[in-house]
Amino acid sequence: MAFLYKADPVRGAQWAARFAQLAPELPFRIWPDVGDPAAIRYLAAWQPDDLAQTLPNLEIVFSVGAGVDQFDLTRVPEHLPVVRMIEPGIVDGMVEYVSEAVLAVHRDLFDYALQQRERIWKPLPVRTAATRRVGLFGLGMLGTAVLERLRLFGFACAGWSRSPREIEGVQCFAGEATLDAFLARTDVLVCLLPLTDATRGLLGKRVFDALPMGASLVHVGRGPQLVTTDLLDALERGQVRNAVLDVTDPEPLPVSHPLWDHPRVRITPHVASATQPDTAVDAVLDNLRRHRAGGPMRGTIDRTRGY
Amino acid sequence: MAFLYKADPVRGAQWAARFAQLAPELPFRIWPDVGDPAAIRYLAAWQPDDLAQTLPNLEIVFSVGAGVDQFDLTRVPEHLPVVRMIEPGIVDGMVEYVSEAVLAVHRDLFDYALQQRERIWKPLPVRTAATRRVGLFGLGMLGTAVLERLRLFGFACAGWSRSPREIEGVQCFAGEATLDAFLARTDVLVCLLPLTDATRGLLGKRVFDALPMGASLVHVGRGPQLVTTDLLDALERGQVRNAVLDVTDPEPLPVSHPLWDHPRVRITPHVASATQPDTAVDAVLDNLRRHRAGGPMRGTIDRTRGY
Repeated sequence: MAFLYKADPVRGAQWAARFAQLAPELPFRIWPDVGDPAAIRYLAAWQPDDLAQTLPNLEIVFSVGAGVDQFDLTRVPEHLPVVRMIEPGIVDGMVEYVSEAVLAVHRDLFDYALQQRERIWKPLPVRTAATRRVGLFGLGMLGTAVLERLRLFGFACAGWSRSPREIEGVQCFAGEATLDAFLARTDVLVCLLPLTDATRGLLGKRVFDALPMGASLVHVGRGPQLVTTDLLDALERGQVRNAVLDVTDPEPLPVSHPLWDHPRVRITPHVASATQPDTAVDAVLDNLRRHRAGGPMRGTIDRTRGY
Repeated sequence: MAFLYKADPVRGAQWAARFAQLAPELPFRIWPDVGDPAAIRYLAAWQPDDLAQTLPNLEIVFSVGAGVDQFDLTRVPEHLPVVRMIEPGIVDGMVEYVSEAVLAVHRDLFDYALQQRERIWKPLPVRTAATRRVGLFGLGMLGTAVLERLRLFGFACAGWSRSPREIEGVQCFAGEATLDAFLARTDVLVCLLPLTDATRGLLGKRVFDALPMGASLVHVGRGPQLVTTDLLDALERGQVRNAVLDVTDPEPLPVSHPLWDHPRVRITPHVASATQPDTAVDAVLDNLRRHRAGGPMRGTIDRTRGY
């Protein structure tokens, strides 16, 4: 019985050390050093490609990322559970990144940066957080944790998801029919949706135009959800005032892309949140215990929804 | 009996409305419309100058700001209590501003901004908040509130003050003798000290050189605490990596000043935290009730310390 890892090798070495410490009885292998394929029961991968089909006794496929949109699920045999990564390192990173971005928009830091370029010292009117309406697209584990932190700052928080959710102190909207009402009350839109056929291209003209004039976007979902030309057009019109983009399409963003030097666009190279090897291994081992005990694992995806 | 206000007239109108609503029995006057000087019992001012000496029945002088360094205390009669502003609006604004600044430094946003200018897409190594050591200069009401929020993000927090303090989960240093030890463990130094003779020019070469190489500065105290030439020199040497400055000396920062276009300096025009008129009036009225009941007021300064 063995565990196979197929992702970034530097992190792989950290995984191996943690496994050796906490689960020495389970041999840990880093792809392409597979050993006997029949011994592999568990696979953790960023992209398994066809690997899962070549391991006859595989029981579980873990994603090393918070999402599985980078998986081609048609190449993972139907009977195998696919589990995405739920571990505190991902959550903490996302809470940090989104908190910073929302506070930066809230405190007019895009405007002050532009003033600094012109050497202008001019205080702008201050608004309290209670009057700043933040809206989250996506109310999964990450969205819920982000909202909890934003609420502490006193922001007026709402969230939108496909199926109904309840979060204390957060105005929850659900389903297509409520989309316009959700967007109309949102000054800062944060996208934390998984990439699915339904969310591809969602951040486009229709959504931007339903926001109040001068709203801002914080995009930490997936690149293909954003229609870049629509965003540039909305920025041009002032419909969208500022955009913080941690994901783009494609990634890396090409050198010639017009987003790079837009004065009201901030770009970071998909770093909002990353798995921390130690806590990731802890989460995987916890799920192995749950699996052996016959219980449900945390993060098992629903293949029909794709997340 | 009347209340006199001498500060920004726009905010004064908001004070007047709140007073009319909550304390209609107490006439509220906005300087220079003093009316009968003998009727004025309470004065709220940004800078009272000699006004306090001309009001024979004055009982209390309130500062409309969180500090009183803008007061010339020698021109306020000795027998009058001087009370600085302690109200949630100031605290909330400061917690927002410092949280954003520390998160921006923590998440390498200065570096990513420089990469964006060059159209470089390059993720930098991620550090967890637990490994980022934040140190606060000044552990008053604002510093304590800021630390409480930073601790939620998991930062390794310490604070330094002149007299000993205890704050849960925060390594507290006190007095001159501990200064070097405090600075040596501080990756992000946040200055929230009041301006006194002891803190004027404190943020200079001696302090910068006692920090670990590549530390960052968030300055939300008072402009004259910072020795600009020392900061520019420390930035040049890489001793200080990034600086977020909300206060400068003088203010406004002159157009020709070299700080304006340093790529690792962010300047905002003294906006980190401002009194909110409504909550400020609530705080003043609360202190008037305490005063009439013979109890201590919140924020009465110690004239020998100057804060």
